[in-house]
Amino acid sequence: MTDFTAAEYQARVAKAQRKMSETGVDALLFCTEPEMQYFTGFRTLFWQSPTRPWFLVIPGSGEPVAVIPEIGAALMAKTWISDIRTWSSPDPKGQGISLLAAALEGAGRVGMPMGPESALRMPLVDFQTLQRLSKAEFVDATPLIRDLRAIKSAAEVNAIGRIEGIASAAFARVPEIVFCGQPLDQVFVEFKIALLKAGAGDVPYLVGGAGPGGYGDVISPPDARPLQDGDVLMMDTGSTKQGYFCDFDRNFAVGRADDAAQSAYVRLWNATESALLAARPGVTCAELYRIMAKSLDGGSAIGRFGHGLGLQLTEGLSIAAFDTTVLRAGMVITLEPSVEIGDGKMMVHEENIAITDGAPLLLSERAAPELPVI
Amino acid sequence: MTDFTAAEYQARVAKAQRKMSETGVDALLFCTEPEMQYFTGFRTLFWQSPTRPWFLVIPGSGEPVAVIPEIGAALMAKTWISDIRTWSSPDPKGQGISLLAAALEGAGRVGMPMGPESALRMPLVDFQTLQRLSKAEFVDATPLIRDLRAIKSAAEVNAIGRIEGIASAAFARVPEIVFCGQPLDQVFVEFKIALLKAGAGDVPYLVGGAGPGGYGDVISPPDARPLQDGDVLMMDTGSTKQGYFCDFDRNFAVGRADDAAQSAYVRLWNATESALLAARPGVTCAELYRIMAKSLDGGSAIGRFGHGLGLQLTEGLSIAAFDTTVLRAGMVITLEPSVEIGDGKMMVHEENIAITDGAPLLLSERAAPELPVI
Repeated sequence: MTDFTAAEYQARVAKAQRKMSETGVDALLFCTEPEMQYFTGFRTLFWQSPTRPWFLVIPGSGEPVAVIPEIGAALMAKTWISDIRTWSSPDPKGQGISLLAAALEGAGRVGMPMGPESALRMPLVDFQTLQRLSKAEFVDATPLIRDLRAIKSAAEVNAIGRIEGIASAAFARVPEIVFCGQPLDQVFVEFKIALLKAGAGDVPYLVGGAGPGGYGDVISPPDARPLQDGDVLMMDTGSTKQGYFCDFDRNFAVGRADDAAQSAYVRLWNATESALLAARPGVTCAELYRIMAKSLDGGSAIGRFGHGLGLQLTEGLSIAAFDTTVLRAGMVITLEPSVEIGDGKMMVHEENIAITDGAPLLLSERAAPELPVI
Repeated sequence: MTDFTAAEYQARVAKAQRKMSETGVDALLFCTEPEMQYFTGFRTLFWQSPTRPWFLVIPGSGEPVAVIPEIGAALMAKTWISDIRTWSSPDPKGQGISLLAAALEGAGRVGMPMGPESALRMPLVDFQTLQRLSKAEFVDATPLIRDLRAIKSAAEVNAIGRIEGIASAAFARVPEIVFCGQPLDQVFVEFKIALLKAGAGDVPYLVGGAGPGGYGDVISPPDARPLQDGDVLMMDTGSTKQGYFCDFDRNFAVGRADDAAQSAYVRLWNATESALLAARPGVTCAELYRIMAKSLDGGSAIGRFGHGLGLQLTEGLSIAAFDTTVLRAGMVITLEPSVEIGDGKMMVHEENIAITDGAPLLLSERAAPELPVI
């Protein structure tokens, strides 16, 4: 009843428990959606409601314990998890904290994600109550969980591959659905519909831009400005299937492409090509960054040239000068070089790959080598 | 360039500052999407990426300070906020914490949401660093921000009204797009497309179920089971426009409705009707809950009979026996009675209303008084 077999989730827990043993952590505590999904297969949009906290405890040995609101019991019972402890939520007298403290009983050191990219999806006062109720020391387990999630299983790579294929198919339809004069926000609606029709489970992320010869920032919602002859249009989607994300963009010239846009596009395509040749186990993220920066003769305007990918749109490593993480087989990453074109305009290019023992596996369908004109 | 006028956001800040003065809070600190959007108009899907934290400081007087990653500067500059302090992110040497400490300089008591429904969207170790760097005492300001956001302005009610109209129009199309034999997951895809075509900005939340005479839990993703004659189908959507949510569901019988389903539907419709008559300023959430429970001759299987609505799918108050919050004009809430039909089956009914000085304003188009058959 979950996206993967019980054996897949059990293997993840077993790996976590080995790392716990190595690092002297007696239990892991999670309250965030990606980790809950990663270990249990519990997948629901109900996380949109901030009302109820959800907890998962992974003991040093044995099976995980889900401490969750009663409303989630039926769905959790469809997963491989058998130890499910619930309370009627919302409850102003306490949101599961005493149940949680009991589930952590006997653990001296409790690891939680407290470092980069982490969030505490429970009220801070509840966490303070937990610290008082529990005799445990709460320690940062960010490296443990980050390292674990970074190496994808074959089943995970396959899941990511499915949404990559779906998004690639939707991008292939852009020339049919996008036209000069169409307001940008309508372009986004049509592309979102194309993604859903192609089989995307959801489209949590669709950003982009359009402007004469290039676009400005790439995190704004689309406006109603109609596409014009000479515009460069970019759409970047993080669509999902079974909870796993793709994350790549495509650029299109509307009507015609000016020399600067064409040249920027080819430079980005070539920088990606050089990274595709270099992305092998043993290479560091910093080295991969430098290879792209050298190819482009410039660094990133947006802080990095790619990142990890999986249950989150961006996760774990950064393809950046500061990140000395060594690439290993099973990692899924994005290659995302960007260039400034001038006048506050930029261009971004993105592909998704899985690191293997040999050449990387290209997950997104490779962008055309020259800027497509629609 | 934002969804509302600068005056709208300025009025929100001014109200917050009055409440700060009353409660002895020198500054407010926010790191979460709804609050950032509420005070500044900064709206982006980029929150999907966990890599970068975003901060907003509201001083006791004067204008807010945005402490954000450089990648968001261009978008933030389109809002009414002029004091924008940025760092190049991600940065392993620190994610804006020293900038944030400087922005809080001089504040003795810093209020943050730490209570019910809150989350800390920044690494816990960074928050601990901030506590060390800053001389401030960090206190819980949940009641302040909850109370402020609970009373919607006319502009907010209007924004919610737009998405309510859009979702109502999409639900009206269900008889055209849904048919017996259609797999449930395809029903969801078609309905999501109908929502986008009707004008929804996004569909972050669509859950539901279908089964003979009723459905089970209502937080599971849809499966591929084809709709069958005698099924009851329910879809519940939290779609958005300009960041504001609707949140209501509709039930449909496929082919025919059995007596138990018809009767449950009418009971729910009548319970909602009694709540619509009673929902006036001065009435408590607990009273509204009891009115619906009395009409249904039973309590809620899912913990409450409604909740606050706005920038989040669920926010603030609960229509529940434990919640003594007094309804006031400007509140936007859902009425969401549910009944068990037996055999683990249930039915849920939901409408969205704005509390006014007189009769409540119905925001969702009122459901049909009898279970519609498609």
